[in-house]
Amino acid sequence: MDSTYYAVIFTSQQAETIKGYDEMAQTMESLAKQQPGYLGIESARSQIGITVSYWENLEAIKNWKANLDHQMAQKLGRKQWYAWYKVRICKVEREYEFKK
Amino acid sequence: MDSTYYAVIFTSQQAETIKGYDEMAQTMESLAKQQPGYLGIESARSQIGITVSYWENLEAIKNWKANLDHQMAQKLGRKQWYAWYKVRICKVEREYEFKK
Repeated sequence: MDSTYYAVIFTSQQAETIKGYDEMAQTMESLAKQQPGYLGIESARSQIGITVSYWENLEAIKNWKANLDHQMAQKLGRKQWYAWYKVRICKVEREYEFKK
Repeated sequence: MDSTYYAVIFTSQQAETIKGYDEMAQTMESLAKQQPGYLGIESARSQIGITVSYWENLEAIKNWKANLDHQMAQKLGRKQWYAWYKVRICKVEREYEFKK
């Protein structure tokens, strides 16, 4: 990719009770995909969860953070689903890929 | 954290045979931790694997990439363990954290 883009690294530790989490995560992923400036998402979970979403610019990230449904999900996340999380907003400076 | 730092996002799809992978991953993690400029590492794997390592500066990332043992691991990775991988080198511009 020639143009600059951004990554949001979201690392999290789930709480003991995560009722409703999977549905909400799925809903939020669908919603993120409809946002202007959305480029992609990658997720994995074992001991901790790591979700990286990719965005065209900082404005797109800001708008997604401020989205009302997403705000509600964030609030529920802090109340019910997460023991901790950390968000890092990053500028992708270089990338390379390997395919077999 | 006040000062700028960098994240290397490594996303990967494992090949069907991954004999020897776990040992090598562990060895590489131990080795990374001894590198100058190393700040931390976070890993998760489910459908895909995501490993994010954090570094003080681009020089530290370059040195780690060029480390001879790591070079050998990268070569074996391409030959045996990965169907694909993508590496993104990112500047962390902002971060925030939640703890219960």
